[in-house]
Amino acid sequence: MLRQLSSLYEQNLFESVIPFWLLHSLDTEHGGYFTCLDRDGSIYDTRKYVWLNGRQVWTLSRLYNTVERRPEWLDAARLGAEFLRKHVFDEQGRCYFSLARDGKPSFYQRKPYAGVFVMLGFLEYAKASGDPWYRAKAEELFRKIPEWTADPRLLGRPALEGGLAYSQLADIYVMCSMALELDHEPTLSDCLQKIRLHYEPAHHLLYESATIDPARRREFPDGRLICPGSIFEISWFLFRALDRCPDPEVEGMLLKCLDGACEFGWDSRHGGFFYFRDIDGKPTLQLESDMKLWWVHAEAIYALLTAYLRTLDDKWMRRLEQVHDWTWRRFPDPEYGEWFGYLNRDGTPSHSLKGNHYKGCFHIPRALLFSVQDLSRR
Amino acid sequence: MLRQLSSLYEQNLFESVIPFWLLHSLDTEHGGYFTCLDRDGSIYDTRKYVWLNGRQVWTLSRLYNTVERRPEWLDAARLGAEFLRKHVFDEQGRCYFSLARDGKPSFYQRKPYAGVFVMLGFLEYAKASGDPWYRAKAEELFRKIPEWTADPRLLGRPALEGGLAYSQLADIYVMCSMALELDHEPTLSDCLQKIRLHYEPAHHLLYESATIDPARRREFPDGRLICPGSIFEISWFLFRALDRCPDPEVEGMLLKCLDGACEFGWDSRHGGFFYFRDIDGKPTLQLESDMKLWWVHAEAIYALLTAYLRTLDDKWMRRLEQVHDWTWRRFPDPEYGEWFGYLNRDGTPSHSLKGNHYKGCFHIPRALLFSVQDLSRR
Repeated sequence: MLRQLSSLYEQNLFESVIPFWLLHSLDTEHGGYFTCLDRDGSIYDTRKYVWLNGRQVWTLSRLYNTVERRPEWLDAARLGAEFLRKHVFDEQGRCYFSLARDGKPSFYQRKPYAGVFVMLGFLEYAKASGDPWYRAKAEELFRKIPEWTADPRLLGRPALEGGLAYSQLADIYVMCSMALELDHEPTLSDCLQKIRLHYEPAHHLLYESATIDPARRREFPDGRLICPGSIFEISWFLFRALDRCPDPEVEGMLLKCLDGACEFGWDSRHGGFFYFRDIDGKPTLQLESDMKLWWVHAEAIYALLTAYLRTLDDKWMRRLEQVHDWTWRRFPDPEYGEWFGYLNRDGTPSHSLKGNHYKGCFHIPRALLFSVQDLSRR
Repeated sequence: MLRQLSSLYEQNLFESVIPFWLLHSLDTEHGGYFTCLDRDGSIYDTRKYVWLNGRQVWTLSRLYNTVERRPEWLDAARLGAEFLRKHVFDEQGRCYFSLARDGKPSFYQRKPYAGVFVMLGFLEYAKASGDPWYRAKAEELFRKIPEWTADPRLLGRPALEGGLAYSQLADIYVMCSMALELDHEPTLSDCLQKIRLHYEPAHHLLYESATIDPARRREFPDGRLICPGSIFEISWFLFRALDRCPDPEVEGMLLKCLDGACEFGWDSRHGGFFYFRDIDGKPTLQLESDMKLWWVHAEAIYALLTAYLRTLDDKWMRRLEQVHDWTWRRFPDPEYGEWFGYLNRDGTPSHSLKGNHYKGCFHIPRALLFSVQDLSRR
């Protein structure tokens, strides 16, 4: 089974996913990547979305750094890196959310995440290109991002006294993802502490947001929110952090939460993982909660494979097979390549698109690449 | 048929919709209204959402001003008006998007719409209460809102050169809605000019956003976006503006667009109106495009009734019957009162909620009340 998966993932990665993006996303005229690509790769929005531009620089550089020194990968990575270098920063060194095709700023979001993906892209591209400017800039962003997260006024968001003091799973994830690349132990150790605040012991889940005052957690939809995809994604990041900073208690907690997310997040009627669920079964504020998303399933596959390879417990293989089968029958598009991004609850595509302002060349190739690489190391 | 509709709408308004909100939404302890109410009225989020608090003040005051001087309506309106007066404004006179239960600011959105609904609520409440402070404040907001819209920096949003210069249907709608209440002819006349920029002549629709450069309109999903609900809502507002500032060309255009929205927006497979569609059939950036929303259908009913009463053309009655039948079988909840807000494409509820951060006591009671009132004037 594992050998079969490995060759399937390798084939999908190198013959379907990466070719799709290389063929359709490169803007050789202005630089950067188009990510709003319809099923056949046609462009339906010429803006450059920064999350996805940073992420694609990461993916292409990572392929170049760890698979093969193919010039076309480095050239394509450079196209995004140089575009971002030239256009992504505002006067205060913050990152825009989107740029016009020619690089003019188009939208600024009061969140740190654009900066995170620029940081990850630049750091990986620095290794690929050997250009120290990108490494220095990545390290600067790594210092700034926790400051932005701690004080939203730096991002232009007022600090309001009626807001709940949240720890966001996403903030732990982004710090962990950057710290792993920099091998920054204090941050990894901090992430392994903070994750405990998110633990939901009844179903073994991780809350998407944790209030500082746990007594008030369930007063708000935000406090009750469960995103199975976040649990999958953060789990394998934290497993990597645990290799650096062992902590058997957190290791056990994460394995339980993976199980919990598979149970609580799975749609027993139609299969697949829900995007969002309320821990108490109350309504979510998100309209798209019942949908089945590509990244949730890609992250689930890699998280379950990681759990299996760490424990060699067959139950993870059984879970992996179930998720793989459901995913593989619905998301990949054999006709035009890549995966569909958004399915209705019943598993049919709700959108024909292969990319948009949140879906690009990232979760799928990363999950496939890491799966193939981990399996080859066995 | 019309007499039957009138009595159905009157009954639904006074025996189901308004009682639901009076019973479940009033926060007699801190003031203001809860709007995150589940199917049975239970509260799943204690925050006070400003759009919905302003709108509910409007609805209750309007009932008091135009239906009957019931003290319970005025008392309930006062509960929201005084809460907003005390808590909604920041130091620069802008309005927060949400407040904690006790009124502390919780979230600030860089958009003018919270101010619009506070303005409408205050103006109507000034008539109900006789308190001139609310009228003065409403007039102040009426002056500020177009300034905010024209220069987003006043709302804390940077003016970015890569943004497209859009005229938003929503901005015309909000200016028209306020100007009608103030009988402000220059603004009404301006709205009737601006709406021409949004006209899509092939299908007779109104674009949700209009670029200043129409040649670039279809480069972007925003430029191609059609929201049938917006066309319904703005049509009847503009018909009222036309009563004040007659313009046969715009009148004809709006009637064509109502027809166009009914054709283009209707789901021929499952019935009901889509939330969003792309004029060229390309993907939308919105995940919820296929869903069927309460306000779209409430606005469709009142717009079609308005078109019938203006023209006495039977085709509008046939369209009204079709929309009414589909709506009435799915949205109203005979068990707990009010309407469901969000249906899947197939017409089944996707969420059990009766209210959230965007659904409150507004579109449904307004459409029902205006329908009943217009029919009683025949």
